[in-house]
Amino acid sequence: MAASVEIICVGNELLIGKTLNTNAQWLARRITTFGLNVRRITSTADDVDEISKVMQETLQRKPQFVITTGGLGPTFDDKTLEGVAKGLKCKIKLSEEALKMVEKTYSRYVEEKLLDKVELTPPRVKMAKLPEGAKPLSNPIGTAPAVLMEYEDTTIIALPGVPSEMETIFEKSVIPILKKAAGESTFFETSINVYGVMESEIAPMIDQVMHDNPYVYIKSHPSREGEKKSRLELHLTTTAKDLKLARNRVGKALIEITELVQQKGGKTKLVKEG
Amino acid sequence: MAASVEIICVGNELLIGKTLNTNAQWLARRITTFGLNVRRITSTADDVDEISKVMQETLQRKPQFVITTGGLGPTFDDKTLEGVAKGLKCKIKLSEEALKMVEKTYSRYVEEKLLDKVELTPPRVKMAKLPEGAKPLSNPIGTAPAVLMEYEDTTIIALPGVPSEMETIFEKSVIPILKKAAGESTFFETSINVYGVMESEIAPMIDQVMHDNPYVYIKSHPSREGEKKSRLELHLTTTAKDLKLARNRVGKALIEITELVQQKGGKTKLVKEG
Repeated sequence: MAASVEIICVGNELLIGKTLNTNAQWLARRITTFGLNVRRITSTADDVDEISKVMQETLQRKPQFVITTGGLGPTFDDKTLEGVAKGLKCKIKLSEEALKMVEKTYSRYVEEKLLDKVELTPPRVKMAKLPEGAKPLSNPIGTAPAVLMEYEDTTIIALPGVPSEMETIFEKSVIPILKKAAGESTFFETSINVYGVMESEIAPMIDQVMHDNPYVYIKSHPSREGEKKSRLELHLTTTAKDLKLARNRVGKALIEITELVQQKGGKTKLVKEG
Repeated sequence: MAASVEIICVGNELLIGKTLNTNAQWLARRITTFGLNVRRITSTADDVDEISKVMQETLQRKPQFVITTGGLGPTFDDKTLEGVAKGLKCKIKLSEEALKMVEKTYSRYVEEKLLDKVELTPPRVKMAKLPEGAKPLSNPIGTAPAVLMEYEDTTIIALPGVPSEMETIFEKSVIPILKKAAGESTFFETSINVYGVMESEIAPMIDQVMHDNPYVYIKSHPSREGEKKSRLELHLTTTAKDLKLARNRVGKALIEITELVQQKGGKTKLVKEG
């Protein structure tokens, strides 16, 4: 059973549709690639009570990891850590380790002549106030540190919302943690395009192939124009203990579905190999 | 108080990061524009139990609307209606009205010579099986009808996942319903770019302006490169009973924040007007 992950994206900009949630897709993709299983993605408001509620509901489902994005910065609307602390019923405390990280960043800004001097104003100190027991993760390209916490059997990781900062911290500090949890698990995927067969015709073929190949998941994606257009993408995925086994499983299912499509007079074409 | 909406996006492709959730952004944007308030967006798996659980948890929060996307098609992995029915503890029943819609679409495909004859195979009939008491909404450009249901004080609307179908049905059948619920409510937004002031410097200014303008929400968005880059976007939004009031409120806050930025030696530039 692959380790389970939930993603929580904090930001009013997501709820008013100002921002496309590319962070969620990027994270989901990376996490899946490492053999973990993203179970749910929730976008919520910059609101302490909402964040707290989402966090509590998420923890009740006992995922191994909760990864949040957004809401770590210096402004009043950066409320993720306050919300998480409320959800976990713990206090917010100044972390000396985090404060050193923040101070170091502003010192660099002074060296780079972006600032005259390092002043640890309240909005800057705010970024070093973490839920009690939490550990800061350094942010090499931004100011607010990311945050690592444990709650019962769940590891909570709070990442910034700026995509470049989120991605950098994920690659540097989060991947090693996830890899350990994933163990030997590997994700493998492949896609074929099917021409000349409608989605409603292919439905029973997918049923049969998935029945014969219980570890392979097949999902059909009609082209954006719906069923009328005769191109249909079939996406085959599996998670296995090594890449060879994963490839073999998907390969067997691929051959079977291709044969069934051809029997119906359709054609297939491999899209890409993961 | 603006009518509340929750969005539920169903699809494994979202959880493995194969697909960017443009549907959620598109819906959030449209819904917000009509003066309603999107409270939460949840992405969940093609799994009856998961969909059922998400639906039950969502209904406990008593939003006025729940809008789902995805999972209405003919294949085995299209499980939204089954999941919703389980969550609502009601049965799935063949809807004669929905079946007529499905039949009409396939008749059109025959006319357009995409099919030889209309056969109502099980996967096609599946698209007409709705939770008991639900009403189908016709899908002018695809096959699976959308679905409208009432549960206590919540209206549930299930839309297809293919973006063009989702958008077409939303514009035609959903907007009239939302407009009625929104009443006189109007959303207004404006953005300014701020140059030469860091996010940590602008934080107390935003605090002050939001304190003076309680109906205006101001959010700062650092450029993708983080705080170092000196451009920062401030996004000002409000929801009011008419556009004039909304504009006046945002305008007043805009002047105030601009003055504060200039006092700090920064510059501002209007980005766009909503």
